[in-house]
Amino acid sequence: MTRKRTVSGMRPTGALHLGHYFGVLKNWVAMQNDMDCYFFVADWHALTSDYADTSGIKTHVPEMVKDWLASGLDPEKCTIFQQSAVKEHAELHLLLSMITPLGWLERCPTYKEQRDQISNKDLGNYGFLGYPVLMATDILMYRPAYVPVGQDQLPHIEMTREIARRFNHMYDCSIFPEPEGKLTPEAKLPGLDGRKMSKSYNNGIFLRESMDDVLPKVRGMLTDKNRVRRQDPGDPDICNLFPYHVLMTSEEKQAEIRKGCTSAGLGCVDCKKILLESMEEFLAPIQERRRAIEANPKFIQEVLAHGNERATKMARETMEMVRSAINFDF
Amino acid sequence: MTRKRTVSGMRPTGALHLGHYFGVLKNWVAMQNDMDCYFFVADWHALTSDYADTSGIKTHVPEMVKDWLASGLDPEKCTIFQQSAVKEHAELHLLLSMITPLGWLERCPTYKEQRDQISNKDLGNYGFLGYPVLMATDILMYRPAYVPVGQDQLPHIEMTREIARRFNHMYDCSIFPEPEGKLTPEAKLPGLDGRKMSKSYNNGIFLRESMDDVLPKVRGMLTDKNRVRRQDPGDPDICNLFPYHVLMTSEEKQAEIRKGCTSAGLGCVDCKKILLESMEEFLAPIQERRRAIEANPKFIQEVLAHGNERATKMARETMEMVRSAINFDF
Repeated sequence: MTRKRTVSGMRPTGALHLGHYFGVLKNWVAMQNDMDCYFFVADWHALTSDYADTSGIKTHVPEMVKDWLASGLDPEKCTIFQQSAVKEHAELHLLLSMITPLGWLERCPTYKEQRDQISNKDLGNYGFLGYPVLMATDILMYRPAYVPVGQDQLPHIEMTREIARRFNHMYDCSIFPEPEGKLTPEAKLPGLDGRKMSKSYNNGIFLRESMDDVLPKVRGMLTDKNRVRRQDPGDPDICNLFPYHVLMTSEEKQAEIRKGCTSAGLGCVDCKKILLESMEEFLAPIQERRRAIEANPKFIQEVLAHGNERATKMARETMEMVRSAINFDF
Repeated sequence: MTRKRTVSGMRPTGALHLGHYFGVLKNWVAMQNDMDCYFFVADWHALTSDYADTSGIKTHVPEMVKDWLASGLDPEKCTIFQQSAVKEHAELHLLLSMITPLGWLERCPTYKEQRDQISNKDLGNYGFLGYPVLMATDILMYRPAYVPVGQDQLPHIEMTREIARRFNHMYDCSIFPEPEGKLTPEAKLPGLDGRKMSKSYNNGIFLRESMDDVLPKVRGMLTDKNRVRRQDPGDPDICNLFPYHVLMTSEEKQAEIRKGCTSAGLGCVDCKKILLESMEEFLAPIQERRRAIEANPKFIQEVLAHGNERATKMARETMEMVRSAINFDF
């Protein structure tokens, strides 16, 4: 039986943190066994908002792929590629832009939200408005059955489906399936300070971070504010630390921690010590894989070259059908 | 001395008429001797407004190139290519879209004009708004010194210059020269009914049209409305026919016609006969060249293949510089 195809990408904006791992990568790693997965570095995408400073891109791309592989993606099981290496994306983007109503883009909730909220970048460009067209392109190129998404990405999947439908209808074809947005179990992991974990808030723990650097971060983490003294009982459900245990500490130990916290038997300092152990246990294999990867300086380059080739093959197939449908098969 | 480079394109919308010849082609033919000319079939461009019906494109492209060659373009002297065959245009378009302010596009006079005036097509798409970005792409790709333009295209050249400036400034480079808009002597040739000559008004004479078809068209042309009877004197300056003489009849004969018309010595019927002779003389060599071209069914294909290759070479050079400037030279 053919494995169902799926596509997902990530912008190369810097070192990946635990939020990326539990929010996205963990799902990707699970998916690669059951599906025909295309995972891409969305480098052209990064330009929609970060066009003004591209200086980091050349490090970010390989470093992010290292984080992917260190997290367990296996280039033998899935296709890992770089968007800008598959030029067909630019062509399909241009073609889909011709049939995408402006109103769809202007009314896109994420567009309005970001334009209103991000004040340190000028997002008033044509390409930023077209962000969802590029996203639809990246997805439709591989004609996937599913696309893993977080809740906040649902409007984009909906638009991707609408663009697919519109193209198929306009050119009387059935090239593009309407991919289903597969809501992934998103483990919510707050940042060290309780806000969303984000590089720009500087409140994350990075996958490539040494325990020496992790230690002070965990020590400084906020716990249950109401637990003023050691002998006060705490409440794990409002503690910022406990979600970390949920994701990284064994269930058995979690139960102990809960009990100890609510009975004031376990103090926050000790609770953090347990977390540090869990974290070390969690990060060790990831960082070990990373070291192995880095031992071969050409490895990432080879992984991408191989993935780009596979992606290009599929993209060419799609473009042949597309050009034929719109009478551009000269 | 290196010849200065120039770029110009035309959408493949159907058979070319006298308006195209005197408005554009005549200039192109003159330019090919003095400049390094890139002339392209703007087929992707045609999709900005004609995305809904692409059924004619495959005939229009080769037929238009035949009209070009029949009009005197020489593939040995200039580069004739097809936009969609040079995929680099799609990539540069995507990159330039990232840095082009929406406001520039929304305020573009031709955008507003066309959106308001064209009612039989839905022009509310993302790609149509981005029309000038695609145009800038097509031009900047060849880093030309000049771009021949009509008065109505001046805002597009201005935007092309602004996009070039913005790119150079943002990425601290000098890849794109700011091409100068070279206002071409545009011979105004009204359509048969006095409106602008346009395929959609069905008021043109086509370069490939036989004299049998031209005859009734010229016979039906409006002349000076005030000249009701044969013996009334006419006024060539308000006659719809006279501009045709200006372009196709010898100056000597023109003087005679003017004299005859204003003195009522020459009637409109005879004036039209003279025009038919001039037109036959004008169209004959064009149509003869067309027949010669058509005698070799592969010729157009070869011309385009050769031109596409040359254009691609230049486009690749540009893209290498562009990718390097934005740190995408992986």
